[in-house]
Amino acid sequence: MAEMVEVIPNGTVTSPKGFLAGATYAGLKTYSPDKLDLGLLVSEKPSIAAGVFTTNKIVSPSVTLSKTHIKSGKAQAIVANSGCANTCVGNQGLKDAHEVVKLAAHHLGMIPEEVLICSTGVIGVELPMALIRKSISNINCTSDGGHQLAQAIMTTDTHPKEIAVSVKVNGKKITIGGIAKGSGMIHPNMATMLSFISTDALLEKNFLNDSLREAVNSSFNMIDVDGDQSTNDSVILLANGIADNEMVEFGTPAAKTFQAALNYVCIGLAKELARDGEGSTKLIEASVEGARNIDDARSIARSVVTSVLVKAAIHGNDPNWGRIMMAVGNCGVEVDESKIALYISDICIVEEGKPIPYFVDAVVAAMAGNDVSLKIQLNLGKGTATAWGSEMTEEYVTFNSAYTT
Amino acid sequence: MAEMVEVIPNGTVTSPKGFLAGATYAGLKTYSPDKLDLGLLVSEKPSIAAGVFTTNKIVSPSVTLSKTHIKSGKAQAIVANSGCANTCVGNQGLKDAHEVVKLAAHHLGMIPEEVLICSTGVIGVELPMALIRKSISNINCTSDGGHQLAQAIMTTDTHPKEIAVSVKVNGKKITIGGIAKGSGMIHPNMATMLSFISTDALLEKNFLNDSLREAVNSSFNMIDVDGDQSTNDSVILLANGIADNEMVEFGTPAAKTFQAALNYVCIGLAKELARDGEGSTKLIEASVEGARNIDDARSIARSVVTSVLVKAAIHGNDPNWGRIMMAVGNCGVEVDESKIALYISDICIVEEGKPIPYFVDAVVAAMAGNDVSLKIQLNLGKGTATAWGSEMTEEYVTFNSAYTT
Repeated sequence: MAEMVEVIPNGTVTSPKGFLAGATYAGLKTYSPDKLDLGLLVSEKPSIAAGVFTTNKIVSPSVTLSKTHIKSGKAQAIVANSGCANTCVGNQGLKDAHEVVKLAAHHLGMIPEEVLICSTGVIGVELPMALIRKSISNINCTSDGGHQLAQAIMTTDTHPKEIAVSVKVNGKKITIGGIAKGSGMIHPNMATMLSFISTDALLEKNFLNDSLREAVNSSFNMIDVDGDQSTNDSVILLANGIADNEMVEFGTPAAKTFQAALNYVCIGLAKELARDGEGSTKLIEASVEGARNIDDARSIARSVVTSVLVKAAIHGNDPNWGRIMMAVGNCGVEVDESKIALYISDICIVEEGKPIPYFVDAVVAAMAGNDVSLKIQLNLGKGTATAWGSEMTEEYVTFNSAYTT
Repeated sequence: MAEMVEVIPNGTVTSPKGFLAGATYAGLKTYSPDKLDLGLLVSEKPSIAAGVFTTNKIVSPSVTLSKTHIKSGKAQAIVANSGCANTCVGNQGLKDAHEVVKLAAHHLGMIPEEVLICSTGVIGVELPMALIRKSISNINCTSDGGHQLAQAIMTTDTHPKEIAVSVKVNGKKITIGGIAKGSGMIHPNMATMLSFISTDALLEKNFLNDSLREAVNSSFNMIDVDGDQSTNDSVILLANGIADNEMVEFGTPAAKTFQAALNYVCIGLAKELARDGEGSTKLIEASVEGARNIDDARSIARSVVTSVLVKAAIHGNDPNWGRIMMAVGNCGVEVDESKIALYISDICIVEEGKPIPYFVDAVVAAMAGNDVSLKIQLNLGKGTATAWGSEMTEEYVTFNSAYTT
């Protein structure tokens, strides 16, 4: 199915039909000429919605409110701010989230219950409501505004993450677009990241929920920057049905096609998040093959990209395969050491659990690129999974030693 | 009970009566004049033994063999080497472990089944057996040899870790001594660390097992350097009964006294391991109070000292309490955000889940020392726990980017 997916040049969350977005500078972040910190995503027509949210027990009231609103299965807009997480601020947090949603709804001519809210930034500071009240009406939503919104949700990201693809379902072209932000505190099970995904496809409501969860499990839940989880993570999918395709339902070929396209969008965004991890210049890809099942494969792939020692070794172009073996054995999954083979950038360095002679220089050279792939063949079954992680750098530590001070 | 424990100046694993140790340089590590890499701990009289070993699924054959031998509940000696982990070397690993144990038993005049083996160092390299065969008979075991053995098990440690205490049980003085090595790959649930503990106390066999497990749960399982676990971790306790005290059994006041002394030894060694984490100069102590139970308290304390973002903030003397809140919420334990209070070095900075006004300079100054204490008051119950961790430094990354190359 994946070969039918067509990537749209310069695509973004407003590439699907009927989606508009815009952003403004409200003063929530330090000023710079091109900085944006408050934005909106809106569908011209009512849309159905699904969301996957952080599992952290300390949660932003912005997440709490969005979870309440999305229970109806409908949402027509998202209001998002960066600079302030609206977390650990007591009862004021939920009051402020309600007011922001109300302001956005008023500006867009909707009811508040159709608006979701996402906040990202510093914890423990109340939303500067006066600035938001003053600025929100400055936001002009356009069909090219996805680029602005992608910038407005950035915190320590070095660049916006955007993607859009088209694919035919039942003969009709549908489009899926998405943006994301991340950088610090990214971990399997979704941490400090926001992603907004839009589609003009007409989808059955339960299928929408299920397909988002499936895509998140294969993408955002398989990346790691630093092992931590945030209080604000949200992935939201809006579908407005404007493409006028035959409704996509469970178990049909159309569902498979849509799922492949949605996975493509989510994996594309997730990989960019991992690559842009604070201080990181490399993307580590760990593929597990031959696991007993997909859950085992996912656990091991995540364990490898989460290991600080593996991340540091890859930063130093060091083929320290012992640390990979350590990480493989570290996640509670039963393995047979004598069956394990390891590959670094397609060069086999371990077979039957033992190192084999290889040219160290060749492996070191292969590791010097921006993409380092690790393959772990367990030879136990047919389960496969891939996870992505950033390297661990001195810059990461320097950066995170002085974030608030 | 703890006030009755008397710390022995310059104490080590040979401080208890009837324990001898020694070490030699066999050539397993790079040479330097004072370097030792092969050592022995031996009890003059038969002793009972207990061990706690790594939970990593990839395990050194040295661990496998020790687990087999210790099943009898008896052991009279430990042979230990650094420089080579004897891990991921196929069938040769177990053969070599058997031979090393046989060589040690021959040198000491024992049967191999009474000898345990521990290896630490690089993974994927076979034990240089010719060097071990040649050198093992050079080891001269003395009642002051604990210091030598503590050096011989070091890998990236900057200094040996040793401690011994005396305490009276039923009117008789008994002594507990211990040594440990660690540095990289230290994590809750025991990783890349070795610790040998000796006592001349007469202990009931099941109590010995239980008390070691209890001490390990409060000490070595509550420390973190980098979130990874090794393939070789072992904590071994030998008790030879030479002190001739009335046998210590479950549920007696003597058992409580012994447990307090054993915890003191294990916590003392564990804290030194955390403080000496690669590149670290600070010891982070996270105390959780008011949890629903001790398991919840331990989970949260460990989550805080394991968080790379918390570690990096403390490295930078940055009172970034939002990251502590994030780590508290991150481990799956239900908390009530509105009841949480946080203290950094006894200064309250968060109450009822919200920041309170405090002098940032005072907190930054308090964090500049070598010991940074964090207290998390959950106000939910009576469960308490303490965990210790190293900071995350640029040096850690540099060091671990170039370990094998």
